[in-house]
Amino acid sequence: MNLRASEGPRQPEPTPELNELYRSFEDELLVPLWTEIGDLMPPSPRPQAQAHTWRWANLLHLAERSGTLVPVGRGGERRAIALANPGLGGAPYATPTLWAAIQYLNPREDAPVHRHSQHAFRFVVEGQGVWTVVDGDPVAMRRGDFLLTPGWRFHGHHNQSGTPMAWLDGLDIPFSHYVGSGFSEHGPDAVEDHSTPALSRSERLWAHPGLRPVSQPGSSGSSPIAAYRWEHTDAALHDQLELEAEGHPGVVEAGHAAVRFTNPTTGGDVMPTIRAEMHRLRSGVTTAARREVGSSVWQVFEGAGAVEVGSRRWDVERGDLVAVPSWQPMTITAGTSLDLFRFADTPIFESLHAARVHVDGDHS
Amino acid sequence: MNLRASEGPRQPEPTPELNELYRSFEDELLVPLWTEIGDLMPPSPRPQAQAHTWRWANLLHLAERSGTLVPVGRGGERRAIALANPGLGGAPYATPTLWAAIQYLNPREDAPVHRHSQHAFRFVVEGQGVWTVVDGDPVAMRRGDFLLTPGWRFHGHHNQSGTPMAWLDGLDIPFSHYVGSGFSEHGPDAVEDHSTPALSRSERLWAHPGLRPVSQPGSSGSSPIAAYRWEHTDAALHDQLELEAEGHPGVVEAGHAAVRFTNPTTGGDVMPTIRAEMHRLRSGVTTAARREVGSSVWQVFEGAGAVEVGSRRWDVERGDLVAVPSWQPMTITAGTSLDLFRFADTPIFESLHAARVHVDGDHS
Amino acid sequence: MNLRASEGPRQPEPTPELNELYRSFEDELLVPLWTEIGDLMPPSPRPQAQAHTWRWANLLHLAERSGTLVPVGRGGERRAIALANPGLGGAPYATPTLWAAIQYLNPREDAPVHRHSQHAFRFVVEGQGVWTVVDGDPVAMRRGDFLLTPGWRFHGHHNQSGTPMAWLDGLDIPFSHYVGSGFSEHGPDAVEDHSTPALSRSERLWAHPGLRPVSQPGSSGSSPIAAYRWEHTDAALHDQLELEAEGHPGVVEAGHAAVRFTNPTTGGDVMPTIRAEMHRLRSGVTTAARREVGSSVWQVFEGAGAVEVGSRRWDVERGDLVAVPSWQPMTITAGTSLDLFRFADTPIFESLHAARVHVDGDHS
Amino acid sequence: MNLRASEGPRQPEPTPELNELYRSFEDELLVPLWTEIGDLMPPSPRPQAQAHTWRWANLLHLAERSGTLVPVGRGGERRAIALANPGLGGAPYATPTLWAAIQYLNPREDAPVHRHSQHAFRFVVEGQGVWTVVDGDPVAMRRGDFLLTPGWRFHGHHNQSGTPMAWLDGLDIPFSHYVGSGFSEHGPDAVEDHSTPALSRSERLWAHPGLRPVSQPGSSGSSPIAAYRWEHTDAALHDQLELEAEGHPGVVEAGHAAVRFTNPTTGGDVMPTIRAEMHRLRSGVTTAARREVGSSVWQVFEGAGAVEVGSRRWDVERGDLVAVPSWQPMTITAGTSLDLFRFADTPIFESLHAARVHVDGDHS
Repeated sequence: MNLRASEGPRQPEPTPELNELYRSFEDELLVPLWTEIGDLMPPSPRPQAQAHTWRWANLLHLAERSGTLVPVGRGGERRAIALANPGLGGAPYATPTLWAAIQYLNPREDAPVHRHSQHAFRFVVEGQGVWTVVDGDPVAMRRGDFLLTPGWRFHGHHNQSGTPMAWLDGLDIPFSHYVGSGFSEHGPDAVEDHSTPALSRSERLWAHPGLRPVSQPGSSGSSPIAAYRWEHTDAALHDQLELEAEGHPGVVEAGHAAVRFTNPTTGGDVMPTIRAEMHRLRSGVTTAARREVGSSVWQVFEGAGAVEVGSRRWDVERGDLVAVPSWQPMTITAGTSLDLFRFADTPIFESLHAARVHVDGDHS
Repeated sequence: MNLRASEGPRQPEPTPELNELYRSFEDELLVPLWTEIGDLMPPSPRPQAQAHTWRWANLLHLAERSGTLVPVGRGGERRAIALANPGLGGAPYATPTLWAAIQYLNPREDAPVHRHSQHAFRFVVEGQGVWTVVDGDPVAMRRGDFLLTPGWRFHGHHNQSGTPMAWLDGLDIPFSHYVGSGFSEHGPDAVEDHSTPALSRSERLWAHPGLRPVSQPGSSGSSPIAAYRWEHTDAALHDQLELEAEGHPGVVEAGHAAVRFTNPTTGGDVMPTIRAEMHRLRSGVTTAARREVGSSVWQVFEGAGAVEVGSRRWDVERGDLVAVPSWQPMTITAGTSLDLFRFADTPIFESLHAARVHVDGDHS
Repeated sequence: MNLRASEGPRQPEPTPELNELYRSFEDELLVPLWTEIGDLMPPSPRPQAQAHTWRWANLLHLAERSGTLVPVGRGGERRAIALANPGLGGAPYATPTLWAAIQYLNPREDAPVHRHSQHAFRFVVEGQGVWTVVDGDPVAMRRGDFLLTPGWRFHGHHNQSGTPMAWLDGLDIPFSHYVGSGFSEHGPDAVEDHSTPALSRSERLWAHPGLRPVSQPGSSGSSPIAAYRWEHTDAALHDQLELEAEGHPGVVEAGHAAVRFTNPTTGGDVMPTIRAEMHRLRSGVTTAARREVGSSVWQVFEGAGAVEVGSRRWDVERGDLVAVPSWQPMTITAGTSLDLFRFADTPIFESLHAARVHVDGDHS
Repeated sequence: MNLRASEGPRQPEPTPELNELYRSFEDELLVPLWTEIGDLMPPSPRPQAQAHTWRWANLLHLAERSGTLVPVGRGGERRAIALANPGLGGAPYATPTLWAAIQYLNPREDAPVHRHSQHAFRFVVEGQGVWTVVDGDPVAMRRGDFLLTPGWRFHGHHNQSGTPMAWLDGLDIPFSHYVGSGFSEHGPDAVEDHSTPALSRSERLWAHPGLRPVSQPGSSGSSPIAAYRWEHTDAALHDQLELEAEGHPGVVEAGHAAVRFTNPTTGGDVMPTIRAEMHRLRSGVTTAARREVGSSVWQVFEGAGAVEVGSRRWDVERGDLVAVPSWQPMTITAGTSLDLFRFADTPIFESLHAARVHVDGDHS
């Protein structure tokens, strides 16, 4: 039973008086509920965003072209090219809440320093040689690393290597834009510290398992760790699958390991609006169909397989990206051992008591 | 300094190659950041919603017409007419996140039972005679009362009096619709309990100051109080102004008393996405200009005055409604003693560490 | 199965070498676990405190005698006489964590101003005429009222009436003393404000159901309400029993209504270490036997009945006090309609994840 | 100004009537406040516990003797010898809230399985070869490791090596005993799993920096990490001192690095009642005098130096233990590079809003 008959709610017979009334509504900037309720309040989320896939090969090709044709500098700020969900009218939104873009930096280029209240991360599917400098702390970017720029930190990037580098940027720009919460500010036009340490200072303070510096008590909404290194993520996924092989709990479901990047001051998500995870499937595994309130974007990190969202299905390989709208059932099949990075807006719903998850066959 | 030059970020010279690149972006459902950043990430929120006023007299007139022409029943569900912000393309949204509507029920009419995950309240600017039945608990609606229907409670209304009644409905429909978090379900076509108690059971359990029933421990995201009665709200406002007159703290600023409706299990807002307050200004008072991240809707409850939002200014009187977009400075001037009801989406921003407030002249 | 055999853990055969070892332990300020474990870590709490009853008539008589013989003033600070649990070696502790005393003030007397980190409340079983002035706010004390003095607030009392007044003081002195967390400081020797308002300013700001002043956001560890008035407590208890009679939920168990005094900024207990409640039993009702981790003190407010704690049973009437040690089963039987005030150290255990409750016959 | 004159509060002149009154108090199990207030409510904590030092060499010697004379088994449960603070009347309490003991296990010995609500940890100042099996998960114990057994987990130990092993046990037994919150239960008489993995399963799931298994959402009062390995602790301390040398923040004060062991599901302390930390001082450093509400125990892990508590001062070296009572000023001087393990009851006070810290010369 739901609030919407298949063809919309039954309406009163049209009459001249009713038409006159409806014209008056328009004149007064009013809209009746009874004509709109089916769209506004469906039995379950019916998002305008669509499931869609973008190919890394294409993204990378266009980023390289942009590297030739478009300079990076003050004003444009970043050579970033955003996924535009086909259901969202051409806006540069991967989903209604999430921004996902490929960013590209030529050898020796700097991206200028700014800060904004929007939360950002970078994920490196391949390459290295760029440092992102966050509030003065240079953070190396290497394949598999997940890097944070929480809101209102000054940051710029510089490529110290002889080769270009491309990576995935994720932000909550669409959410912030829609609800009207965004602030921004310029910093220096060039990055001031071009040093190239292997580890950021934030990691040296914070990225020790189960430990925190006594000098920095309390909790913050965003994680103080600027870089989550691939070696740790890989080891954690490896350990989960090994535990499963030994007969112990740990994996999400058979053959499916997953870790969540967390804020060590709370144990919660890395930033108030963004959840980020890495998943690993054994070759041949198909995940249970899962629906979640809220939207997400997946990127294949390694391996090949197929992704099914609702009635759509795509074969995917390294770097390919998939946008998953709210409450759409999703299934992944691993053709090889398959590693996937995922980010989602789930913290919004958990904070607002609006999270729901449905997993096929799960009656717990 | 901000991310957007007045005429948008400086762009690369258009060339055939660049045009070709931009066409490729479109083909691949991509959008470059460097052409959009001014809109997406302004120095401070630049909402699409506009400040606007709706006159209660007009709303009531059209609601009465609807009462003649449009039946209430399953499908359309409610005889509610929503404010459509002029900046939001005709959608029935008072602001990007908030729904505000006049609802109207004829004598002896029932509005059918349903439930939805969207959070709802009613505020009664005038009239009485309707009971809203929330999960089986009949709640009388009287002038000045603030009434809750948190998400996923079954509810219907019935008018037991011989006169029609109109009131203000507030919900988070636009937010829920945008982020894709809404669920709904029908209940019985008619309200099953037409009794007319003066107080709901929820009030008898929960609306005693500083007390809670030992049988109901723990906290919940929404308030268990179904009705906040005018007599208490009025007394609280009266006491604040009296304390001010005696030289003690309590008011928000000189001549400006304000109370927030709260969830007694947490001390926080009544529902996860909606803040609600009642304000009282002494005659002649002008409030400090105040900006807040997030949007709000005000309704004059009693008295007359003027409201200024950004560069707009309106004289307002009983029942008039004003939508205030994010980060727009707002000032109220009381021509008489002036009572105003306010609701806002602030809890969203406080939960997500994105709240900001600026009050002119406040350097604390 | 438990860690203690009935006669203590089996011990190694005593030998000269063992005796020598035990002497060495003593020399080095050491104690072996294996001789003590039965006492230290029993299968369930085996408190040293005992269930005990103190008669209000006796307390009042001795307080009156003290009123004749002992002045109130700086140094002794208060004419308060504390319950000393028979299991606690003569210390003025009703239980290991809770202080309970009768305090007595002659006509026109002042108790000097001081403050301490220990949390305090007063409960008035009979009489009136005293005001307690808390951080400058005069708070009238009347029969049935529950009055707060959270830690570190300056406070003094003054009797404005022509008759003496006695009341119950409750504090966490024993807990604070044991763990070493107490601080204190003198204020003026006499109360500075001898005014006699019917309501404190704190109530005028905070004691409106479901409302809070917008000028005072945030939450605090202790309640901002200085007085919980009997009229509200009585109404809340009355409503619960009436709801029960109508067939609706609300009471704790059949014929047993109960309300908890709460901090309106959190919904939790009034102070970090003390829970306070008022209970009402219909005549003839016997409560289910209930055990709780932590200790409590009960005082009969109105009516007569019997209290059973473990193997002890006492008939009780107005003003009588009962100390209930941790994990002792307690049952109350109401000979008449019976109102009881209760305070307990439960918040300590809930904060530290150590709370446990067992109710006979409750298999939920 | 404080509540206690140096010789106690001024008392009324003794008279026959007063003596008679005081006798009546005793008869009725009552104690007047005015004779006791100086002890009960001093201006700042005046703990009964004393600062004291125990020498590891002595402890180890007596533990070895016990290894010869006292078997380990059901009933006595553990060959553990507890520090008995000289101010606490011979009770096996290092401080009023904390238990600290040396535990000793001979080659091939098992300590039987049990569980208790008291929280426990082990810290290994030297040696290896024992596994503690916590809810079925074997946890290797090696020099420098900090190992958790949160409340109500079944656990036993077994020595798989050919040499005896001794370590430090820490628990909240005294606190739990005093407040009456302890439960316990026997498990099997012998450990069932004698396997010897290098890492526990808990570490493989949880001890990856900034990562958590997606399969285990939510938060718990105690950490899921069973072992905090020395290599991580050492690296974190090393990094802090290196950052300091480079001119960056991170250390607690000049030359003083410190890390806290945390619960990765909350970012808070490892267990609800116990804080644990490791400190490293550069050679020659003297820490600022620091007072804290609550008590602690320190153990030298490596190096030599001096500890001053109040008016006492001791030279200390590897393994030596120092008990520090509430609010006593403590200073450490490092004769060499000095590593110290510390545990404290601070979480009790932070949970109950009673924490206070004073650092000499700190005016922040």
